[in-house]
This record gives sequence, C-alpha cells and structure tokens, in this order.
Amino acid sequence: MLSYRQELWFNLPERMEFRNITPEVEKCLRDSGVREGLCLVNAMHITASVFINDDEPGLHRDYKKWLEELAPFDPSPQRYHHNRTGEDNADAHHKRQIMGREVVVAVTEGKLDFGPWEQIFYGEFDGRRKKRVLVKIIGE
Amino acid sequence: MLSYRQELWFNLPERMEFRNITPEVEKCLRDSGVREGLCLVNAMHITASVFINDDEPGLHRDYKKWLEELAPFDPSPQRYHHNRTGEDNADAHHKRQIMGREVVVAVTEGKLDFGPWEQIFYGEFDGRRKKRVLVKIIGE
Amino acid sequence: MLSYRQELWFNLPERMEFRNITPEVEKCLRDSGVREGLCLVNAMHITASVFINDDEPGLHRDYKKWLEELAPFDPSPQRYHHNRTGEDNADAHHKRQIMGREVVVAVTEGKLDFGPWEQIFYGEFDGRRKKRVLVKIIGE
Repeated sequence: MLSYRQELWFNLPERMEFRNITPEVEKCLRDSGVREGLCLVNAMHITASVFINDDEPGLHRDYKKWLEELAPFDPSPQRYHHNRTGEDNADAHHKRQIMGREVVVAVTEGKLDFGPWEQIFYGEFDGRRKKRVLVKIIGE
Repeated sequence: MLSYRQELWFNLPERMEFRNITPEVEKCLRDSGVREGLCLVNAMHITASVFINDDEPGLHRDYKKWLEELAPFDPSPQRYHHNRTGEDNADAHHKRQIMGREVVVAVTEGKLDFGPWEQIFYGEFDGRRKKRVLVKIIGE
Repeated sequence: MLSYRQELWFNLPERMEFRNITPEVEKCLRDSGVREGLCLVNAMHITASVFINDDEPGLHRDYKKWLEELAPFDPSPQRYHHNRTGEDNADAHHKRQIMGREVVVAVTEGKLDFGPWEQIFYGEFDGRRKKRVLVKIIGE
C-alpha cells in the first residue's frame, strides 16, 4: 500500500473566502504515485472547511450571504457564548459545520475521479492568518 | 489491495427527490469481492447529495419542506447571483451542502457495516435529467 | 493491509449532548497497529452525529441553541410528518444532517493526523438510551 501526506498552507486576506485548491490536490496525487485508492482532503482548523462544488463567483457570493444569514458574524458574547473566551469567531465554527470539514475523493487510473463540474475548495471563515489543509492519499 | 469502481445512473422525475440506493451499493460490494475496507459513495454532480438516514416517507417530506425553507427555489437573479448565469438551480447548490456530497461506509466481513436503520440515499435537488453517483470500494 | 473494527457505546443522560471521544478513538488506533492509513468514525444511529470541532463548553452551548433554532424539538405531528409514526424525534434527524454522520481522519506515523484544536465528538440528538459509534481503521 502506498501512503502520501502533504500540507497546503493559506493566508487568505478576507475573513470569509473560498479558494479553488483542485490544482494543488492534483499535484499531490501525481507526486503520490497512487493509481487506485482514496484521497482525503480536510481542513486542519476548526473555523475552515474543505468542500466540493462549482467554481462560479456568483454562487460563492450566494454562499457567503446565506452563511451570514444562518450564522451571523457577531463578536459580542451576547449572541455567542464562545466569544466569552475572548475570541470573536464563534460564527466561523458554525459556518464550517454547514460546509463540512473534509472531502474524500476516489482515485481511479491516477486521476481524481470527478463528475463534470466538481472542484475542491478551501472555505475560510476566520481568515487573515496562516492556516492549512491536509491531503492524505492511500492506495497503490 | 482490491479496488472497485461503478457508476449508478438516475433520471428522477421531480426537481427534489430522494431514492434509496442501498441495494445497488450492496450489489457493487458483492461484485467487488472486498471483505474488509472502505466504501465511498458520492454524488458526481454538485446539485445532488448522497446521505444516510431513515427510509421513512414522512421524514423525507419533512426534509423537503425544511430544505425549501433554508434555501428556497427561486429562478430569479435577485435572490441568487448564481442564476445570473442563466441557470435556475442556485437553491440546489445550497441544499446539497446541507445534506452532504458523500458517505464513507465501513466494509466488514463483506457487508456494509451499518447500524439498525442506516440506509443510503441519493438526494436530487435539480432533477429531470440524467445524473450519476460514484461507488468506489478499496480493501481486500 | 491491516483492518480494525470497534464499537463505542454511549448512553447520554440528555436529549441533546456532545461527548469528546478523541481518547477512545486514539485507543482504537493504538490497538489497531496501523501506522499509515485512514480512520473512519461514524454514528451507527440516524439521530446522532460524529463531528470534529473545538472542546469549548460555550461553543457547545451555542451549537445547541443554533440547532434548536434550525430544527426545533416538537413531538407533535403538525410540524413534522415523521412524528405521525408515533416517534417524537424528527428534529433529531434534521440536526444530525447539519452536524454530519461521520469523519475520516488521516493516520500518520501511528497518530490521528490533527491540526492544533481538532477533537472528535459524538453528537447525541435523541439520547437517554444506548447508542453506538463505529470506528474502522484500514492501512498498514
């Protein structure tokens, strides 16, 4: 069995932002030498997501508005008890649960086995600092 | 290591509909010959989900009503910027994030290692056309 | 390829409650002997979740309030058709979809390959009875 591990680092300039990381994951897969197996891609931080959806800026704008409605940013400790710790990112912990921590992608004949529009995104909900994603690939 | 891949195709008659695909996934597992491993089942389209829950029609009716409240169908470009592309399915991209893209199921002694009520569903949010699910099984 | 399976049993005293199960999963990993691979942890019940987030009581209080807003407990069959079956837990089936069924964690050098604050939680939404989580580890 082959096993491969890589960290991808990001420092996104906005609090909430989505970045297409498909090319970086494809490079990991090439480097791994795995032809058949599974590829796990997960946020290593609990205020960020990895998810698969469409690379369309209008949709990303919709997602941001929708997530802000479902879990508004509010640094005060009145809305979110978490912010009594001195943090201001309780909303980010909620947004991440909607969008998910991780994706698992099939690897077939050395490629990410994707449908026509699937792209992998890093979803940042508490940015403006260095954070990272883990890519782990197993197979043969 | 054994590796198995199969696509399941659907053309559901409603815009939003849930289909129990457990028997099809079980057939894939039998065909794979895998006795111990992991089984990934994912939507290959970004307006559809694969999820595990109860095969109870009342619950599915509840899910549809709830998802419609959380992300209403609205083809206009006023509510959803995504629909400025000429598409009308922005709501489906949102519903899919709530219900998830994929499930990973343990394979033990040649069976899907399920609790008493777990069933796998294809969740369609923009139907009335051919779409597909990927089943990838690795193990030995 | 190594393969390991274990069930973790819980009987939480509240209807909705979160339990940090990271130590139990770490023990499973040690017992498995796997050094490189993937670790699947999933709820075996469809009214419960396994998720990764912060071990901070204020945040857990926020999650409970938020989930109750998104899918309120209501045993009546007026709000939820599912409760026409005689059950009162339709809300729990909804809350579980927000928080997710499962996590897949990379195993690297015999450890759960975690970022600085990642912890695994069992999320109970219809407690006060015995329920279980499956841990499945594959690798070598």
